Amino acid sequence: MKLQTTQENLAKALNTVAKVATTRNTLPILANVLLKTTNNRLSISATNLDIAITHTIGSKIEKTGSITVPARLMQDFISSLPGGVLQLKQDDNKLHITTEKYNSTINGISAEDFPVMPAIKGGVNWRMPASELRKGLQKVVLAASNDDARPILTGVYFHNQPNSVMVVATDSYRLAEYKLSKQKAPVNFLVPSTAASDLLRIISDSNLEVLITHDEQQVLFQSGDITLVARLIEGNYPDYRKLIPAKFATVAKLRREDFINIAKVSALFARESAGSITIKVDENDKKVSINAVASQLGENTATADAEVRGSGEVTLNSRYLVEALNAFFGEEIELCFNGKLEPCILRSSDDVNYLHLIMPLRS
Amino acid sequence: MKLQTTQENLAKALNTVAKVATTRNTLPILANVLLKTTNNRLSISATNLDIAITHTIGSKIEKTGSITVPARLMQDFISSLPGGVLQLKQDDNKLHITTEKYNSTINGISAEDFPVMPAIKGGVNWRMPASELRKGLQKVVLAASNDDARPILTGVYFHNQPNSVMVVATDSYRLAEYKLSKQKAPVNFLVPSTAASDLLRIISDSNLEVLITHDEQQVLFQSGDITLVARLIEGNYPDYRKLIPAKFATVAKLRREDFINIAKVSALFARESAGSITIKVDENDKKVSINAVASQLGENTATADAEVRGSGEVTLNSRYLVEALNAFFGEEIELCFNGKLEPCILRSSDDVNYLHLIMPLRS
Repeated sequence: MKLQTTQENLAKALNTVAKVATTRNTLPILANVLLKTTNNRLSISATNLDIAITHTIGSKIEKTGSITVPARLMQDFISSLPGGVLQLKQDDNKLHITTEKYNSTINGISAEDFPVMPAIKGGVNWRMPASELRKGLQKVVLAASNDDARPILTGVYFHNQPNSVMVVATDSYRLAEYKLSKQKAPVNFLVPSTAASDLLRIISDSNLEVLITHDEQQVLFQSGDITLVARLIEGNYPDYRKLIPAKFATVAKLRREDFINIAKVSALFARESAGSITIKVDENDKKVSINAVASQLGENTATADAEVRGSGEVTLNSRYLVEALNAFFGEEIELCFNGKLEPCILRSSDDVNYLHLIMPLRS
Repeated sequence: MKLQTTQENLAKALNTVAKVATTRNTLPILANVLLKTTNNRLSISATNLDIAITHTIGSKIEKTGSITVPARLMQDFISSLPGGVLQLKQDDNKLHITTEKYNSTINGISAEDFPVMPAIKGGVNWRMPASELRKGLQKVVLAASNDDARPILTGVYFHNQPNSVMVVATDSYRLAEYKLSKQKAPVNFLVPSTAASDLLRIISDSNLEVLITHDEQQVLFQSGDITLVARLIEGNYPDYRKLIPAKFATVAKLRREDFINIAKVSALFARESAGSITIKVDENDKKVSINAVASQLGENTATADAEVRGSGEVTLNSRYLVEALNAFFGEEIELCFNGKLEPCILRSSDDVNYLHLIMPLRS
């Protein structure tokens, strides 16, 4: 391999892929990135065996080839170099990188040993603007579990509904669902939330379309010069839609900013009690108040004005409430519930495709 | 105690003092801040027994008194409240804080148990603009040791020289010295670098003067509404000035930015070798080059143009070099040394009051 590329493009590609490379695996080559010439371009890849990301950049290739080099060193090194043209030259398992002022050799491992994810054969595919997919994933990925004991709950579930594709995640304490636009393709797969987070990072400022291809085992997201392949999680996702109440005894509409403020202040006093706060909705006073009691530290009641239909009380985890409120767009938010035992719903007329459910705590 | 104050002032005062409060001490009251009415104002204090900080703010006092409350909760809580007037009311060991929308009670500990630093009796005092003291401390505090095995090296040493007050710190691997303006008062004391860091934080955007008062045991820094008292470190500071060479066989002058870049890139390759990098100054080529060799990862040579008098080579710790270069102001920097064994000096004609010394590594 012998080629020229720019520091800017190579740094960008390394920033896209290097995060997936891992030193925690027993296979040392997984800590490396693969550099490989393909079709007169240079592809840069990393994988942790569950997720693989490839970014392909322009390059002036004199001699084709491939090599793997330590991801972290390569990323830090290329990011630190001044902008401009870089010369890359492979010499057995060494990569020489040269600019006018810098002359370095990085020891690598043969590309032959780099694991490749199996190709997706057949499968269905559909397209969606990156901006729409981003909006949906941002709002649901926070609700996924990171407890490997129940792998299904660590995923983000994509599935058809009559008028939409739904993305949903739940850790069994809360659930977030977002309605993406309808697709003709049959959509029904469960992608690891870590892959969804990587995808979010990759398309964070993209105005392109994303092509989504999936079979029984894998899903591939492709956008511009970047592809992400993830192994799907197997198993049946819980029938979560039956959890969502159809009617509510108590509905309070208030400014989202006010709600966040009173929830955050209350959370400070709820540290001792595992985040437990009690929300009281009062139809007569037209107020929502949050009370937190800490036997050691003291107690706090914070109040906000609201439009209220039906008085009631519910006890929630303050962290889940604050995270949910932060996931919404828009000025106003509705808190809906049926007494102290049924799930509590957050929704907003400014953000109609999004629904967030929080299970109450016993108080 | 019953009073009114503003959220803005109280939040500012808590941000000044609360960092000193500590939950790591066995004395629980040290995790608290003291609120106390004094001369129709409200003083807010915290101490860890080595350092005490007090910030006094305006207040409309109805009833005098004092109480201590948990520093972290109080700081987080007051910072989270909206701006405007707060009502504070003491009720035994409880503090009630009320605004239009918030109503909270924080459990405290009686102010009688709060430890007070002894007053400074007599002692000398002098004044200096906060901006000058800030500049000096910023540039030396990084060189102090944080190894309690040699307490003297954990301090910042203030002492008279014929035409200046010098501040200096060293961890025995490197040394930083800054020349403050001359004072008539006899100055000779050693303040903990943690206190110097707290002082830097307090005067970070101050245009005021700082009044400095010290006796044998303590030093007091006072600026505006804030005072910081620190217990001095006892013992004789090493006679460091004899370490500084008077003449140099090799002097290289280069752009500080270039020097930082080549040092940082080299540091990446020096991770395996405990940061060891070799600097080569070449009078014929008019270049400074830095070489780092990592047996596992590879190697790197980075080069910058320089004005050179006398060729030579020296091996340094890359972290110390990068930190030193970042502490300088100005465009250009001079690297001066006498072969591989004697201390290496960094200085700048743009920053004449500052000198930074780094001991070479054996290579």
